[in-house]
Amino acid sequence: MAGFVSLVGAGPGDPELWTLRALRRVQEADLVLYDALVDATVLRGLTGAQCFCVGKRAGRASVRQETVNRLMIRAAGRGKRVVRLKGGDPFVFGRGAEETLALALAGIPYEVVPGVTTAVAAAGLAGIPVTHRGVSSGFLVLAGQTGEGLNEALDAVGPGSVTLVVMMGVQARAEIARRLIARGWPDAMPAAIVCGASTPRAWTWTGALGALGTVEPPGELPGVLVVGDVVALRDVLSAGLASPAAEAR
Amino acid sequence: MAGFVSLVGAGPGDPELWTLRALRRVQEADLVLYDALVDATVLRGLTGAQCFCVGKRAGRASVRQETVNRLMIRAAGRGKRVVRLKGGDPFVFGRGAEETLALALAGIPYEVVPGVTTAVAAAGLAGIPVTHRGVSSGFLVLAGQTGEGLNEALDAVGPGSVTLVVMMGVQARAEIARRLIARGWPDAMPAAIVCGASTPRAWTWTGALGALGTVEPPGELPGVLVVGDVVALRDVLSAGLASPAAEAR
Repeated sequence: MAGFVSLVGAGPGDPELWTLRALRRVQEADLVLYDALVDATVLRGLTGAQCFCVGKRAGRASVRQETVNRLMIRAAGRGKRVVRLKGGDPFVFGRGAEETLALALAGIPYEVVPGVTTAVAAAGLAGIPVTHRGVSSGFLVLAGQTGEGLNEALDAVGPGSVTLVVMMGVQARAEIARRLIARGWPDAMPAAIVCGASTPRAWTWTGALGALGTVEPPGELPGVLVVGDVVALRDVLSAGLASPAAEAR
Repeated sequence: MAGFVSLVGAGPGDPELWTLRALRRVQEADLVLYDALVDATVLRGLTGAQCFCVGKRAGRASVRQETVNRLMIRAAGRGKRVVRLKGGDPFVFGRGAEETLALALAGIPYEVVPGVTTAVAAAGLAGIPVTHRGVSSGFLVLAGQTGEGLNEALDAVGPGSVTLVVMMGVQARAEIARRLIARGWPDAMPAAIVCGASTPRAWTWTGALGALGTVEPPGELPGVLVVGDVVALRDVLSAGLASPAAEAR
């Protein structure tokens, strides 16, 4: 039997936000290579596959991209069913394109299993719709760690024209706010930080764009910035909104 | 027991791309109000709940938004577990914000269950990553039916600075291409149309932005436009990429 690689999105963190196909692929896998954002205890309870964490973990560097590619290609070449399990969606940052390029060039058959992207879910779970008729006609998703690419993208979008979502944006929050305000975004534009979305430790702050740099979010959780008028809807929407922790009702 | 509304994203179409929580909520529901994009046969096989289609169906208009809101509020007020099942993610267009606002203002407890957004999945399933290091540092999602809002958003983003995804964009494809080219996007910029993503009838075209208006996609399927250099990656990525129809391997 020919080997096969499934590039699978695991969603923002809560295992209940896996897709049915993600669950099935993990259950049927021989080898699972997973990111640090995936809950390893849950994962190992679901499958008899060999499971390796290839993401960053406390105090240890992540496995190099070339090594991940080589592990996938070698196992699939030996007929294994390989699952590459990634946080969020495989193609929203996180190097999914690099991995599928390596597979395609090596002649390994593969599939993409889309996941719930944290870009939309982090905001939504906090009561912030990324689009709303008459308020926001679209949303722009950027990554806070892309250096020059980030600055160019921030400069390329008109002030307040769409909702801005910056993934992994917590560290650069002060610089991002400064740059947006310098480009004409109002100092008072509603903004949010959402950390640990969909997990029991989820943490949300909302306030003015101008105050974004002064906030101190819990440092160890991955976080998303949201900037735009839709953030103000949270004041109304949070009434009655159940959090993931209310799950056990 | 108090009633409760779950606003649930059903993903791009394939029922295997539902989340585990979506499945559980539907199984436990008393009433499911679903969009036309949801597969009714699959849905009714999964639940004993009353199921009503409130979306557009062949030759019939969709139920008015106020009616949908009233149905949810009335049923939850009577202690029912209501699932409002929407295509894609509840907050990526599709009026999810309007529905949660109505619930919040009526004092009805509710939750948001994020779904796989078609904005990312349609491209990804076709072998087009919306982001790729060194090629695209982000993506902008717009809707093709928002009139003035769409034009403003198209004007607000720099040519080729990020990947552009236009949902429900097939009808306005010629106008959108003209406007982008007039704003400085290269005529030769790679572009794609993806219709019926994740379904057995999925249909994909790729070519130059300048040719977008001349393509005739299958009319009855919902479609997404993708514009940006990442589209060119499909030429390499499609080697070895299994389609959803290859599912039964």
